[in-house]
Amino acid sequence: MATRNGRPPLDLNSDVGESFGRYTLGEDGALFRFITSANVACGLHAGDPLVMRATVRAAIQAGVAIGAHPGYPDLQGFGRRELRLNPEEVYSFTLYQLGALAAFTQAAGVPLRHVKAHGALYHQLAREAELAQAFAQAMYDFSPALRVMTLPNSALEAAAQAMGLRVLREGFADRAYRADGSLVPRGEPGAVIHDPEAVVQRAVRMAVAGEVLTVKGEAVPLRIDTLCLHGDTPGAARLAERVRSALEAAGVTLAAPA
Amino acid sequence: MATRNGRPPLDLNSDVGESFGRYTLGEDGALFRFITSANVACGLHAGDPLVMRATVRAAIQAGVAIGAHPGYPDLQGFGRRELRLNPEEVYSFTLYQLGALAAFTQAAGVPLRHVKAHGALYHQLAREAELAQAFAQAMYDFSPALRVMTLPNSALEAAAQAMGLRVLREGFADRAYRADGSLVPRGEPGAVIHDPEAVVQRAVRMAVAGEVLTVKGEAVPLRIDTLCLHGDTPGAARLAERVRSALEAAGVTLAAPA
Amino acid sequence: MATRNGRPPLDLNSDVGESFGRYTLGEDGALFRFITSANVACGLHAGDPLVMRATVRAAIQAGVAIGAHPGYPDLQGFGRRELRLNPEEVYSFTLYQLGALAAFTQAAGVPLRHVKAHGALYHQLAREAELAQAFAQAMYDFSPALRVMTLPNSALEAAAQAMGLRVLREGFADRAYRADGSLVPRGEPGAVIHDPEAVVQRAVRMAVAGEVLTVKGEAVPLRIDTLCLHGDTPGAARLAERVRSALEAAGVTLAAPA
Amino acid sequence: MATRNGRPPLDLNSDVGESFGRYTLGEDGALFRFITSANVACGLHAGDPLVMRATVRAAIQAGVAIGAHPGYPDLQGFGRRELRLNPEEVYSFTLYQLGALAAFTQAAGVPLRHVKAHGALYHQLAREAELAQAFAQAMYDFSPALRVMTLPNSALEAAAQAMGLRVLREGFADRAYRADGSLVPRGEPGAVIHDPEAVVQRAVRMAVAGEVLTVKGEAVPLRIDTLCLHGDTPGAARLAERVRSALEAAGVTLAAPA
Repeated sequence: MATRNGRPPLDLNSDVGESFGRYTLGEDGALFRFITSANVACGLHAGDPLVMRATVRAAIQAGVAIGAHPGYPDLQGFGRRELRLNPEEVYSFTLYQLGALAAFTQAAGVPLRHVKAHGALYHQLAREAELAQAFAQAMYDFSPALRVMTLPNSALEAAAQAMGLRVLREGFADRAYRADGSLVPRGEPGAVIHDPEAVVQRAVRMAVAGEVLTVKGEAVPLRIDTLCLHGDTPGAARLAERVRSALEAAGVTLAAPA
Repeated sequence: MATRNGRPPLDLNSDVGESFGRYTLGEDGALFRFITSANVACGLHAGDPLVMRATVRAAIQAGVAIGAHPGYPDLQGFGRRELRLNPEEVYSFTLYQLGALAAFTQAAGVPLRHVKAHGALYHQLAREAELAQAFAQAMYDFSPALRVMTLPNSALEAAAQAMGLRVLREGFADRAYRADGSLVPRGEPGAVIHDPEAVVQRAVRMAVAGEVLTVKGEAVPLRIDTLCLHGDTPGAARLAERVRSALEAAGVTLAAPA
Repeated sequence: MATRNGRPPLDLNSDVGESFGRYTLGEDGALFRFITSANVACGLHAGDPLVMRATVRAAIQAGVAIGAHPGYPDLQGFGRRELRLNPEEVYSFTLYQLGALAAFTQAAGVPLRHVKAHGALYHQLAREAELAQAFAQAMYDFSPALRVMTLPNSALEAAAQAMGLRVLREGFADRAYRADGSLVPRGEPGAVIHDPEAVVQRAVRMAVAGEVLTVKGEAVPLRIDTLCLHGDTPGAARLAERVRSALEAAGVTLAAPA
Repeated sequence: MATRNGRPPLDLNSDVGESFGRYTLGEDGALFRFITSANVACGLHAGDPLVMRATVRAAIQAGVAIGAHPGYPDLQGFGRRELRLNPEEVYSFTLYQLGALAAFTQAAGVPLRHVKAHGALYHQLAREAELAQAFAQAMYDFSPALRVMTLPNSALEAAAQAMGLRVLREGFADRAYRADGSLVPRGEPGAVIHDPEAVVQRAVRMAVAGEVLTVKGEAVPLRIDTLCLHGDTPGAARLAERVRSALEAAGVTLAAPA
């Protein structure tokens, strides 16, 4: 089987560093063995300075590329509730979080490579052009070399491309898709795929064939650069391991974007 | 009268950017006309991303050098209550705040020049060697070019010098001193000098003669590089103007450290 | 002119206790001389335990009835940004805030009389039946004797009445109304009336004639039990004084609901 | 063996409700089967309104007496770091938290029975008379019927007794004691007893004989009303079960204070 049809290596990303103070979340240590890019929480929806420092260190030791994972300032809601920030607020809160995390990568002598928004912010940026523009501007003003992870064909993809930022199109092997390539919203029936074997097969299909089966069973094209492996569910590390093995068995080269 | 006896220009610094959300504090706009260095709050004891952005812009427009003003994560207490962080916590919380503020200076294309701790942290770092060491290490790891403002002969001065960081020795014209050159603690009688004329005279004496009158009326040597002008008291800008005028009339050159 | 056409006395309410830590907001001390009911912030969108204690004391000294003013947990946004809480969250966050404030009234030996939601929550509760139901349930579960301030004909009015809670219909003399009795949203032209004389006249018309002029100049009926006097704008206390004087001159009896 | 030598039944207490938002902590569900009193976090050092509501419900279902567990406003530090609040701050922050939790017991139709401070606050109140007085006053002003859990012979015991509050003297079966009946501070060698069998034996000795072995092996008197079972360590519920079984086997009657 031809590998990715000449496309670059596939990136495997996970959200990490989401512990806070006394509270531990996720299986970061195990995940680092399987992913190629880590999205590190920046202290507003999750994470704190101690967690950020430890997470950056662990990512470096594991040879994983480090990105920022900014979210809404809503720790109690874990950044999953919509909060009506205006564009100026999105800009400033994003810049704040990029800088906060970059301090730890800078102190450790490694670059900040990418940015992926968290939770409700991720989805709002995919839909709302004005917020997407503000987010992309914050990234650009911080460093034009940063890459942004976002949904294919999203408002953020458009805003980032217009600004000259490199986009990493993201796929989710455990989420159902509609015919237009968008995600079936959480809460709708079948939105999340729980069967590990199905998740593994979908990951391989996305990576190799560049397509995904919709919730109605049709294959639609979906070209992705990075695949998200959820880290905060039970068995996350085990599933990550299976996905990685299957991708490697299918001849897919796995690496953080060059 | 000889100007500063051959010493470099005197810096005038103020804490700014201490507003938060709906809450406005200080007279930053007016102060920027008189000071040469601004210590910008970083969002934990005061300030928020919107305030940080606006404050950095205003400082640049006024030609004022920008530094970070990190504090304890205690907004309700405005960073003025002692919080027993351990050295690892001081390191990580400091690095976090340096990065958060530096994102705004970086986006605006200007350097972060100095760091001055806020409130209870400032005084703990002056006394406690282990915390001072952690703070200096965070600064050094972020950038060895950063300068630190601290009390002369403090634990932080020692830690910073040992690490090769440049120290800016700070004086307070409105605070009483003891014979050993330390500040009379707030709360003790006479600790704060309220008479503007006295403050002005003390500022000139520190700047020109390199000495200060103790609470008992003796002159003791106090060589300073930067003079703090408090910004959150009523009439702060007016007092800053008077101090600046008097220093200029005495032939003192005022400028941020080169 | 007949007084309120046989209706009960009019209540004058203001949001107070919105200071936080080092940050002072509003002219509470002056306002207490003119209002009959105080809506006290509960520490999530504004206020803190020290402010709550001081505000309850001041209200008691001024003979002003005390109510709770719960808001979204968003201090940086002052509770003015929409946050998508679900009904269970609205219930629990409301109950939390009622209890927190009631501790201070209970310690002072006075009852908690009413509840008025703040900012974005106030407007969401006026529109969304499910959230309104959750809010009313929290009030009822805390004490069925509590009265709720809300917009006439709002979702919250309906939910509260269905539950047997007493409703205090609220009017705003400085806000423009539409023909259906709803407020012109902030941001639309003419939404806020800035001319003090116009505000005073509208207050009297609402109180005495039970009607308001719409933005197009038509008089529509608007029967209110309580009139809101904004407290956090410059000149708030002066305007409150003028409104109160004009109402008294028109023969309107002013008192907190019996 | 005579049961408790004529003393009242022994109470078994645990800190519960310490989860927050997305973060789960402790084994509350299992613990409720073994304890007689629950100390519920109040949202400042741990817990949130949703967690408080669920915890109160679960405690009621399990027939466990409910108390408030106020702490310092330091979520990131889990209330374990010293924060220099002054007496007025201790009073107001305590009252706030008592009210917040009592809203949930009141809505559920059960009384709030006791109060136990958390973490650094617990230990400061045991040592510092002024803070202890402020804490007891907040409890008394909220309700003179509340009982306070504290260390025997502590500053808080004295302050509470002087005020007429009922004191529940607390013992820790997994902590080492000194000859004067005080705890060996955490961090010193042997401060925490990890061997479950030793913990069980110490619990029985405290409960039945009213004495404890010091770190040097001497038996000193320690009359306690309530025994703390830690809830946030691995195996907490299993240890609680063993302690309870051993106490029952020794003929100790277990019940929340009448």
